[in-house]
Parts: sequence; C-alpha cells; structure tokens
Amino acid sequence: MRLPPPLAPGACIGLAAPSGPVPGRELQEAVHYLEQRGYSTAVGAHALQRDAQFGYLAGTDHERAHDLQQLWLNPQVDALFCLRGGYGAMRLLPLLDVQAMQRVTKPFLGYSDITTLHLLLNGGGLATYYGPNAGGLQRLNAAASACLWGMLEQTMQGVLPAEPESMQTLQGGSTEGRLAGGCLCLLAHACGTPLQPNLDGCIVALEDVGEPLYRIDRFITQLLLSGVLQNAAGFVAGTVTRWENEEASPRPDNLLQLWLDRLGPLNKPILAGFPFGHEPDPLTIPLGRRAALNADARSLTLLPD
Amino acid sequence: MRLPPPLAPGACIGLAAPSGPVPGRELQEAVHYLEQRGYSTAVGAHALQRDAQFGYLAGTDHERAHDLQQLWLNPQVDALFCLRGGYGAMRLLPLLDVQAMQRVTKPFLGYSDITTLHLLLNGGGLATYYGPNAGGLQRLNAAASACLWGMLEQTMQGVLPAEPESMQTLQGGSTEGRLAGGCLCLLAHACGTPLQPNLDGCIVALEDVGEPLYRIDRFITQLLLSGVLQNAAGFVAGTVTRWENEEASPRPDNLLQLWLDRLGPLNKPILAGFPFGHEPDPLTIPLGRRAALNADARSLTLLPD
Repeated sequence: MRLPPPLAPGACIGLAAPSGPVPGRELQEAVHYLEQRGYSTAVGAHALQRDAQFGYLAGTDHERAHDLQQLWLNPQVDALFCLRGGYGAMRLLPLLDVQAMQRVTKPFLGYSDITTLHLLLNGGGLATYYGPNAGGLQRLNAAASACLWGMLEQTMQGVLPAEPESMQTLQGGSTEGRLAGGCLCLLAHACGTPLQPNLDGCIVALEDVGEPLYRIDRFITQLLLSGVLQNAAGFVAGTVTRWENEEASPRPDNLLQLWLDRLGPLNKPILAGFPFGHEPDPLTIPLGRRAALNADARSLTLLPD
Repeated sequence: MRLPPPLAPGACIGLAAPSGPVPGRELQEAVHYLEQRGYSTAVGAHALQRDAQFGYLAGTDHERAHDLQQLWLNPQVDALFCLRGGYGAMRLLPLLDVQAMQRVTKPFLGYSDITTLHLLLNGGGLATYYGPNAGGLQRLNAAASACLWGMLEQTMQGVLPAEPESMQTLQGGSTEGRLAGGCLCLLAHACGTPLQPNLDGCIVALEDVGEPLYRIDRFITQLLLSGVLQNAAGFVAGTVTRWENEEASPRPDNLLQLWLDRLGPLNKPILAGFPFGHEPDPLTIPLGRRAALNADARSLTLLPD
C-alpha cells in the first residue's frame, strides 16, 4: 500500500460532493473552518448542485464524476475531502477513469457512502482516511479533531485514542493486519461489482447508521456468502447509530449478539464499540495502514509501515 | 428448465417458514384455505417458531433449514408453499444440501424474501412460482386467485391478465425469453454470492416494498455494476409498494423515472406497472417459463416450452 504524504501546512484541499446534495451553509462552514486552519480550498464546480430528477444526488452523475475526478487528478490540489455522504458514489463508477485515479497519491477523506470511493482507491493500493466528511468537521469535539488531523499530518502514532471501558471484547485474541472496511451497507452493495474488496489478512472495521437489525444481518450475510470476510485477520465493530427521531435501529445489546452470531464462527478477534463512522465524534481510521488489534486489552494500535 | 408437474387435486402441500415468524392465525387460515380447496397439508415442525435471539427469524437457522429441506425432499409432499417473507432465507444457504434440493422437481411458491430460494431452485434448472406466500392466500381477490391456481395447475395460458391501461410503456419493443427476477433487494443482495443469477436472455421482473427511491437506485446500480442485467431480453417493472403507515416509498412518477434512468440505457423493452409481488392482489409469475413481452401493447404472454 502507498501511504499519501502528510498533509502539509498551507496545502490546498479539494472539496467534492460525489453523493448527496450539500447545504450551502455546510460548504461555507467547511471552507471557513479549513481556511482558519491555514489551508486553501478548491471547491468542485458543482458542489452545491442538486439533481433535478433525483433530489438525493448532488447534481447529475456527470457533474459529480467531473468534480471528483478533476480535483483528484489536479496536481495543484494536495488532498481531497468529500463534503457529504448520502447516496450516489456507486453511480459514478462507469464514468470515472479508474486507472488514472488509482495512480494518484494524496490524502483522501470521507465516510458513509464514500466507502465506495475508499474501495476504489484502496483497490489501487492507496491508503485513505475513513473519517468525517468535510461538511461536519467544525462540529467535532477536541478528541475527534485531534485524531483526524493527527492522521492527516501523520503525527498520530501508537494506540488509537478510544476508551477501553467504552468497548467490549466480543471474541478475545490479538492480531495484526492492514485496516479495511467502512460502512457495512456499502461494503455489501460492492459485492459482485469490480469494487468487491479482498479483505484477506485485514483488520476489518464495520459500522452503519439507521438500519434495523435484520438489514445489518443481511449485509454481513451477503459479505459472508461472497467469501469476503472469511480470511480477515480480525474485526473492529463500531455502532449502528440511529437516524434522528428514528426508532428502527437496533438496541446495542442485540447488535452485539448479531456481530457475535455472524462473525464469531470465523474465530478471529472481535472488538466491539469502537467509536468511528457515524458516531457523533468519530475517530478517523487510516484504511490500508498496518495495525495491531488486541481484543482482550481492547486496543487498536497503528504500526509503522 | 424443468417445469414442475401441474398441481393435482388432492395433492399434499408442504408449508414452511424459511424467513420471518408466522402468526399462528395466518398458519391456521392457510391450512384451512388449502383444505377447503381439497388439498392436504404438511406443516413444517418449526413453522410457528420465533428465534429467541433474533425475533425477525422464524426459529433458528437449523430449524428453518430443516423444515424447508425436509419438506422439499420428501416425496410424499407434492409442492412447497412458503408461509411468509420478511428476512432470513439467505442465512440458510450454508446449511442446505443445495445439490439435493436442485434435483427435486415439484411446484415451489413464495415471494419477497423467498426470492433467494427461487434463485437457488431456478439456478438448478427448475421453474418456480413467484406469487403470494401461503400466509396471505385467503385474502386474494378472484383475479389474483385465478392466476395463482391457473399457474400451479398449468391451465393458465396466453396473455397474463393484467390491464394494459394500468401499465406504462417505458421503452417500446417486443422480445421473448425466460421469466426471471423477483424482489430487487434480494436480487441485489445475491450479487457476489453463489446465488448471483445469470439473467442473460431473460425477461426480468422487478419489484419491491417499503424502500425509498435511493435504495431502489442502489439495488439496480449494484446489479448493473455486477453485470447481471446487461444481457437481459427485457424488463417488467412492478411497483415499490409502501409499508403500512410509511412515507418513505417513492412517488410512482419518480419510480418510473428511475426505471428509465437505470434500465433505459440497456435499450431493451421495458413495461412498467405490472401488478405482481407486493401489490395487494398480485399476479403469479412463473419464473423460468418462456414468455413474450410486448412493451408497446403492454402485454406479457406465456409461451409453450
């Protein structure tokens, strides 16, 4: 795996919306926040578009693919942060020059629906950052913010700063491997496609949002039936957070039972409750970096590459 | 494809619950209804179970797999009707003797989550019936009931009894092929697994329930990225009905736009609004049977094999 260079002071950060539409205020706040931190920004030409026909898309497929690819390939842009998740990145695949995109080496940040683009870039051998979308950066607490910037600037080392007492050992043991994973829904929906990942030997981090338990079950079951999880080194299970005002998401204890039911028979270490993804103040996971998982001690430790 | 024999008067119909739990009253009504029609029934030993840990399952995986397989392989049982959908059939795959099940030739009926089992049996060369689950048979109107029994008894021939004025020509043209498809969600979640279907040359019928538009988009997009739909002969799009008291499902005109957006570029005939699947009074589709689709005349016609 290629590690991107550390994000340098004054870097130019590209902002793209490959999935759902971005409120104007969120874009303004993201630009303001990044400029206050001393970066310049390059905003995709269609970042505030909304598709006329399908309102869940931030512009047409061609507009979103154009912004994403233009910013990613542009050597004047030092990093790419996705503004929002939602849905839509999968639709872009036939429109992207995948080989050209996979040759680029720079920091890439995003989560949720952006899992699809992590699969694309990780599949090309680039390590990426599964962390907050740019639309939400200014709302992070100090710990989540420190983790994000520590990852991007590559000053973060050793044990990731998650409280052991807030996590659960679902299956003991320790292992090493490259970090992989993301949002379960998108991992399941990559099965059968050119983005279906090879997770052999990886420490696989899984999380989601607003899904009832039976759907989480279905996502994992599809990944199992596709043979994607069987040779993973271990699992870091996050949470399945609720949509606002929504009752469907699983009770935490049912979710733990489900992780154990589906992943337990693989006989790998499983650490549950790791705070990443859709958690309010998530840690940023450097996909593709080597790490050590100790499910007994409830710790995930970055290793030198 | 092997056609099962016509369901004969006095046949013994097996009733199994491979997915979600079945209310006792629904099972009683199904048995009563079938006995009134002159059939005997063989009810799976665990048909009324509910899994203690995961309440969305009709018993443990072993219980559900046992009932399904035992009834299907039993030569005293002339046909198998699934009692309910929900979720859970995918979980059974590792527990089933797939080869033994694929050698059996008898009528198989069910829909929704049962799509998974249709894929298994169609994949073994058996034609099956995508129609109402046994738990809902007594609620069908006369037309839906006549279609179901006409299919099972193989007295139904020619044009399927859907009103042309209730359907829409989304893309004109006519074609022939074997019928395939089912519930979109389950077809998408079969991608990458041993159940991913080969739909080349098929007339693919698609429907779903209670899914917002962007999820329907994601299901079709996964099937497209997996190369499953590209060589289909044509498409019969059903509806995406609402859950009770639920607002998330797409407006009908948005759904038509989505079918056209995703399937239109394949340049095949597309007929929309065909009443099957989760519609209140659905027609039964004989998966694996040869048919002619005329999207201009808005008709689907069974052909002799």
